[in-house]
Amino acid sequence: MVKIAVIGFGNIGGGLVELVERNKQFIKKDTGKEVEIKYIVDIRDFSGHPLKKKIIKDFNIVLNDPEVSVVAEMIGGSHPAFDFSLAALKAGKHVITSNKEVVANFGEILLQAADDNNVSYLFEASVGGAIPIIRPMRESVSSDNIIFISGILNGTTNYMLTSMLKNGKTFDQSLAKARELGYAEANPSADVDGIDTCRKICILSALSYGKIYNSESVYTEGIRNISKRDTNDAEKLGVVIKLIGRTEKTEDGKVFIMVSPRMITESSPLFHVNDVFNGILISCEALGDLMFYGKGAGRIPTAGAVLADIIEVIKHIDTKQLPPSKWERADDSTLADYKSIPMVFYCRVKGDKIPDGLKEVSDEDGEISFVTERTTQEQLEKMLNGYEITSLIRFDV
Amino acid sequence: MVKIAVIGFGNIGGGLVELVERNKQFIKKDTGKEVEIKYIVDIRDFSGHPLKKKIIKDFNIVLNDPEVSVVAEMIGGSHPAFDFSLAALKAGKHVITSNKEVVANFGEILLQAADDNNVSYLFEASVGGAIPIIRPMRESVSSDNIIFISGILNGTTNYMLTSMLKNGKTFDQSLAKARELGYAEANPSADVDGIDTCRKICILSALSYGKIYNSESVYTEGIRNISKRDTNDAEKLGVVIKLIGRTEKTEDGKVFIMVSPRMITESSPLFHVNDVFNGILISCEALGDLMFYGKGAGRIPTAGAVLADIIEVIKHIDTKQLPPSKWERADDSTLADYKSIPMVFYCRVKGDKIPDGLKEVSDEDGEISFVTERTTQEQLEKMLNGYEITSLIRFDV
Repeated sequence: MVKIAVIGFGNIGGGLVELVERNKQFIKKDTGKEVEIKYIVDIRDFSGHPLKKKIIKDFNIVLNDPEVSVVAEMIGGSHPAFDFSLAALKAGKHVITSNKEVVANFGEILLQAADDNNVSYLFEASVGGAIPIIRPMRESVSSDNIIFISGILNGTTNYMLTSMLKNGKTFDQSLAKARELGYAEANPSADVDGIDTCRKICILSALSYGKIYNSESVYTEGIRNISKRDTNDAEKLGVVIKLIGRTEKTEDGKVFIMVSPRMITESSPLFHVNDVFNGILISCEALGDLMFYGKGAGRIPTAGAVLADIIEVIKHIDTKQLPPSKWERADDSTLADYKSIPMVFYCRVKGDKIPDGLKEVSDEDGEISFVTERTTQEQLEKMLNGYEITSLIRFDV
Repeated sequence: MVKIAVIGFGNIGGGLVELVERNKQFIKKDTGKEVEIKYIVDIRDFSGHPLKKKIIKDFNIVLNDPEVSVVAEMIGGSHPAFDFSLAALKAGKHVITSNKEVVANFGEILLQAADDNNVSYLFEASVGGAIPIIRPMRESVSSDNIIFISGILNGTTNYMLTSMLKNGKTFDQSLAKARELGYAEANPSADVDGIDTCRKICILSALSYGKIYNSESVYTEGIRNISKRDTNDAEKLGVVIKLIGRTEKTEDGKVFIMVSPRMITESSPLFHVNDVFNGILISCEALGDLMFYGKGAGRIPTAGAVLADIIEVIKHIDTKQLPPSKWERADDSTLADYKSIPMVFYCRVKGDKIPDGLKEVSDEDGEISFVTERTTQEQLEKMLNGYEITSLIRFDV
């Protein structure tokens, strides 16, 4: 019998409790072991809840109970999630999380603590929701050379961009609709300003290149500035606009990570990833282009990814733990300057004339838009010296 | 130092040897171990080859060499691939393969032998080429309820169908082009008659439901009969035609497996899987719809998937082996009759009139085509009693 404590009885935590109950038979068949949720820790009042006998307020009870071997941290936010996770690992308990903030901010510390205590720290649900992505990266792609990763990693903004591109909605209209459908939070900043995507691409980057970068140091642009003119021009160009987290290794050994809206051409498998779905394109030297597609969020899908991690831990529970992958915290100086990376740009400037040799897309309302050849932003800004740039969207090529 | 023997120095075997050499550093970093290919076994003459010192003709040398802990079976075909694999497992060596024929025909025997001898039998490359699919199914989806799997599993036929649908080519024209590009074999039957797809969907079905069905017992239709009229009608309907391997559990506990061309609507992520790419859609109860996309074939991509299995074995080589998943050989009587499963059909009949209530698609050359409501083939044939059916393509919904 494997005994689990679920910390945080919110949306995902509640989904996990439900799923473990519902799938007990599958788990038994798959792992040969029975599981039981022994505690649910939450500081809120659940005195009328049918599971109230399992619900406790004090995490120390979990920490001091040797029967509990697996802790599912479903709190969200950095604290006390990080502190509880570290304490649990130090107490020799496996920790599973869906908390990308903690993984992005403290992953290297928690992976080290897991290794020191011969337990696992797993976080499949932190990126891509239901999509198996962390485990395939660790196990199937790990000995290949990853050329780049380009991911649609946030369902809320992908829903909004899909509705802006396909149904001609504005940012405000699509945000209102996303709120109505429960996709967007009251404060949507983490989604629409790209913060959520940034944490996730930093995690994927760490899995690719072994170092976790401070997400605050990564150039991050959200989708607030995407205008009707941008989406109209995208349609003219036969492309779509997606919020993309991208990581790649540059020739001089630095890592280039960036979050920004990107124009996606039809030849990319990301072109068709619409609505709340996520898609993660991994371009590998040997395996070629792989894409992983599925629901990036949602109570039960995300809980399903947490459960997959719990299953992995249970399968290994009687054997020696495998050495977990370990990260170092990266030095910001090894992060490539985004302005030095050659890209293709969609650009719009005020005026009635653009420099020669640029491919004009539209000329309206005193603004001319165009697409550049592959160039760096540095060079582009030099070329456009004197112009007022009103829009700049990179192509994901 | 982990010593490997590669059996079969053909396309994939050659790719594997190349890849192991090229990725030695990644492997060392990822697993902590050095690897060496000690033998390459092939009965053909390689006396002028730069690796000739490693190339031997007698498999027994591998079998009797205790230094070799991993055998990569890259021969293809049932025999001697099965016999060599079984002997290697019994000699306590891990076996990795890309051979779907052996896995489909003898998987249950080889998995049992692996378990008995505390080694692994891994076959990631047997389905989906480069796409990580076997491992995610074993590890990420294993405790979820799989509702169905629908897969584009053969790159050659997907290339051909894409060219028939998008470029208006006939079957013969697209086959000629596939041959020219090296996608199709001189004898293309395994691809175009659906045999390859059938073996792969049987393997995915076994991973889903624990039983491996005889692929000869599975209703299998290839793409030879797809006509210009079919593709024209598909265009009219806004759908594409793909060769689909599908498995699902029926309400009465049987398993329904089928290989046939299917009409795919735009709402399916399989709609956009074109050319030689494969796409595997797994619909799960908790995780929702997942799709895995990538190169389904090719020397280096497939070798990359074999290498991922080798890496897994190396990572576990000092620890107790995990119990491998085991299958039983399924009794054909538990295979659902495909004519009893409700589906939506595209159908064409000779004549100038069709039964009332059917949605006509086109009426040309003395044949009327239409789309049915959800019904079984049994009921459809009853309804069309007296009609000559000239085309029947199922929808994948």
